Amino acid sequence: MTTPEAAPMGVPLAGFGSFYAGGRQVRIEGQPVRRIQFTPTVDFDWDPNGLFHIEQAYVQWFVPADRRHALPVVLLHGGGYTGTMWEATPDGRPGWLMDFLAMGHPVYVVDNVERGRAGWCPFPELWPGPPILRSAEEAWSLFRIGAAPDFMARRPFPRQRFPTAAFDEMIRGSVPRFPRQTDDAAVAALGAVLARIGRPVALVAHSQGGEIAQRAALTAPEQIAALVLLEASGFPAAADAVRWRVLQVVGDHLDATPLWRDLAGRYRNFAADLTRHGVRSDAWFLAERGVAGNSHMLMMDDNSAELAREVAGWLHTI
Amino acid sequence: MTTPEAAPMGVPLAGFGSFYAGGRQVRIEGQPVRRIQFTPTVDFDWDPNGLFHIEQAYVQWFVPADRRHALPVVLLHGGGYTGTMWEATPDGRPGWLMDFLAMGHPVYVVDNVERGRAGWCPFPELWPGPPILRSAEEAWSLFRIGAAPDFMARRPFPRQRFPTAAFDEMIRGSVPRFPRQTDDAAVAALGAVLARIGRPVALVAHSQGGEIAQRAALTAPEQIAALVLLEASGFPAAADAVRWRVLQVVGDHLDATPLWRDLAGRYRNFAADLTRHGVRSDAWFLAERGVAGNSHMLMMDDNSAELAREVAGWLHTI
Repeated sequence: MTTPEAAPMGVPLAGFGSFYAGGRQVRIEGQPVRRIQFTPTVDFDWDPNGLFHIEQAYVQWFVPADRRHALPVVLLHGGGYTGTMWEATPDGRPGWLMDFLAMGHPVYVVDNVERGRAGWCPFPELWPGPPILRSAEEAWSLFRIGAAPDFMARRPFPRQRFPTAAFDEMIRGSVPRFPRQTDDAAVAALGAVLARIGRPVALVAHSQGGEIAQRAALTAPEQIAALVLLEASGFPAAADAVRWRVLQVVGDHLDATPLWRDLAGRYRNFAADLTRHGVRSDAWFLAERGVAGNSHMLMMDDNSAELAREVAGWLHTI
Repeated sequence: MTTPEAAPMGVPLAGFGSFYAGGRQVRIEGQPVRRIQFTPTVDFDWDPNGLFHIEQAYVQWFVPADRRHALPVVLLHGGGYTGTMWEATPDGRPGWLMDFLAMGHPVYVVDNVERGRAGWCPFPELWPGPPILRSAEEAWSLFRIGAAPDFMARRPFPRQRFPTAAFDEMIRGSVPRFPRQTDDAAVAALGAVLARIGRPVALVAHSQGGEIAQRAALTAPEQIAALVLLEASGFPAAADAVRWRVLQVVGDHLDATPLWRDLAGRYRNFAADLTRHGVRSDAWFLAERGVAGNSHMLMMDDNSAELAREVAGWLHTI
């Protein structure tokens, strides 16, 4: 194994940076001081009271050396994941971050509220727990890698495009989430991210991030050139409020569970609603287009680079 | 405010990437299933049992286009922070990540166990809580920005080099920590990071990260070319076990609190111990060298770029 810095996946960059956006200051009062062992050599009276900043989003941005497109691409993770899901596939191929940079787009990668470098709020009076962490078994079934009973043998669905041999590597990128409680904060923080970017973007959102993205887009329609929904978990936006182009991308094996049968119907309904309201949208049910075997994690599947190229091609038509 | 991608701080890169290292698989059993509202439209029987991967570290690496030094620099955050502390100063100047890239070094930025994109373990049977989050008041005093009673007025110590007007911005980068419980896991994960890099590095560690770095260095001495300790919180390594060059960098106002008076004495003792054991080391008490006013967050102070240059100059002599 060569040293990481020798890896060929790096894309030459003109520059990169990061920022925090949104959130709020809160004041904790009336909690007892706790004696903690701060380090092996330092005891400490820890006072949990005071001023804190919570519910911010963290963003990293990258500008390719060979910038060929003005349109920034904003990548928003799904539930239980962070921006790392766009960097590399579990089997070590370049992720969509690298793919969109290589195609000449500036890219913003978000860690939204509660995820990754955005941090999280450990005060139960503000964020009641307990949070959940997704097990490998749940991911196996929920992401349509294979049938639940086939997890132990890691036996995937036929024609599975997810790199199943690297399945356990993917689990390292899972982080805890506080289901639903932080949705409003995530919408607000994503709105602050869009305001900070300050120009129309292509917002590419996965799964639960698709709901957050739609709600944030409604609060900042002038910031959205297009919304790319990768198997969104739902549709909080009424089609008549949509002021941007929409692309839905949907994988295979949608009959795997009742949840997915239901969502597949919602994808079709949303596409029909958009059309009825005169919104230009596309819905790519990949299996119906002759591309079989994509999982819920299609940005990690063996055709991830090809899908990124197709999404970029769609963006270049808007 | 211009769009972030137009910011001048970006350093041209030949490439970048990321990886997870270390950690372990754990199995949770016998916990009751919980009904949760997964998204606004999806209810879910959430099963907390199963296979999880915890206690990994996350690393991002960057290679400058103008690479003038072979020696990789590894940046390790202090307690309650993540790798973001090296990216930009709270007042928006380039951080040490940018500084070392601009000087031609490849740089690895670590989110160690429990921090940022490394994720954290929400199962109290594995990581007993509650974790702590540092308040603005605690940071004000602990980081030697000013005296505790002067927090409300944000009145800093005389000659303070920390960008006090941006103090509240810094708090956005704070994340929860589980004091001491995760130390062993952090040492193991950092060891896995060093093994993955696979060649000797300059390990630059701040505060609590200084203790983790010293312990990890003892487990992988062949991976360490030099250790740069920025106000380490303690010295788990006996001086006679040190097989690498050591630089300690220490700020001003060390008489501000009993904690800092104690640590200042430890810095001097460690330097003397290293010398006694024939280890080549340096300890820069900046105020004694004519540079007054540095805080505990010296990589964010107004002379951060100059300090990075001096540290790089020291690295180039080893």
